[in-house]
Amino acid sequence: MAHIRLLEGLPGITALMAFRPETAAPMRSLSEFLLRGPNSLTSAEREIIATYTSSQNDCYFCQMGHGAAAAHYLGGNLELIDQVKRDFLTAPISPKLKALLAIAGQVQKGGKHVTPGDIKRARQAGATDLEIHDTVLIAAAFCMYNRYVDGLGTSIPTDPEVYLAMGKRLAEQGYAHSGAAAPVEAAG
Amino acid sequence: MAHIRLLEGLPGITALMAFRPETAAPMRSLSEFLLRGPNSLTSAEREIIATYTSSQNDCYFCQMGHGAAAAHYLGGNLELIDQVKRDFLTAPISPKLKALLAIAGQVQKGGKHVTPGDIKRARQAGATDLEIHDTVLIAAAFCMYNRYVDGLGTSIPTDPEVYLAMGKRLAEQGYAHSGAAAPVEAAG
Repeated sequence: MAHIRLLEGLPGITALMAFRPETAAPMRSLSEFLLRGPNSLTSAEREIIATYTSSQNDCYFCQMGHGAAAAHYLGGNLELIDQVKRDFLTAPISPKLKALLAIAGQVQKGGKHVTPGDIKRARQAGATDLEIHDTVLIAAAFCMYNRYVDGLGTSIPTDPEVYLAMGKRLAEQGYAHSGAAAPVEAAG
Repeated sequence: MAHIRLLEGLPGITALMAFRPETAAPMRSLSEFLLRGPNSLTSAEREIIATYTSSQNDCYFCQMGHGAAAAHYLGGNLELIDQVKRDFLTAPISPKLKALLAIAGQVQKGGKHVTPGDIKRARQAGATDLEIHDTVLIAAAFCMYNRYVDGLGTSIPTDPEVYLAMGKRLAEQGYAHSGAAAPVEAAG
């Protein structure tokens, strides 16, 4: 049961966004731009950074929803998402994305964990300043979303089908107009 | 030196907000509503929650800027802010704020650290669902801001006067129109 009285039937962050629309609006805008705005990183890459950060924070709702969104962009390749979460260094992803995931992992531990060496390795793999910036901010933002979802004890679906539907909707329709970072309809 | 090329002379998050205005806008809106919007918690109380979370994350820029904002609302009482950071349980603040700071401290560690006991103690001290919600989200949001500021190695002023000016400006003018969570002019 959630720590505060929320509308029933809404999973994870969707219930919180219905509870507090004033804070939902800027959080939706931030997600929409960070994950789906114009960018030299693909939305799949950005959703993978979000998923990895969420898995490091042990947030089941966010890692499953955003993992499904990333997989949807990649033709349904959930196995790749699992590989990234288990050990991204051996996953079949680009050296640049590996270097950015290493930075995201440091951000998850705390901002000061990011070292000049982490940045240098990302640059050597071809990452731009903007890509490094966005990686740090995506990881930082999911340190917020993950704490928000779990810190208020929201209802977390266990049925994998719920997350597949959610991921499809996030990838196809996004965050801005859905009413929540994971749309309400995904609960059904 | 910052990890990416930022405009010189802008401290902390202000340089990042100048670098990436597309993400600055929703973050400014979130701060403005969370810390200065209509609320049964005073802005001083909310800035104290932000300051305490930032101190637990060891983010000097945020704890100093928001601590100065909180103190400004309280007639310049910086000693109280230092007491809260050292040991909020013995600080001269309300039992309700102490219970909310305990929740913020758990959120800082991770969302799952918040227990039904933490919530029960806050309710017994008079906290409403909305106050508990906003406390969790303020703490979660500062886990983002703190990581953003330190994760990109921004320039952090050491002169206490800079933070006094910043806190005054944040308390009097807020976040929405200043161009940054801590205004650019505070650097001077």
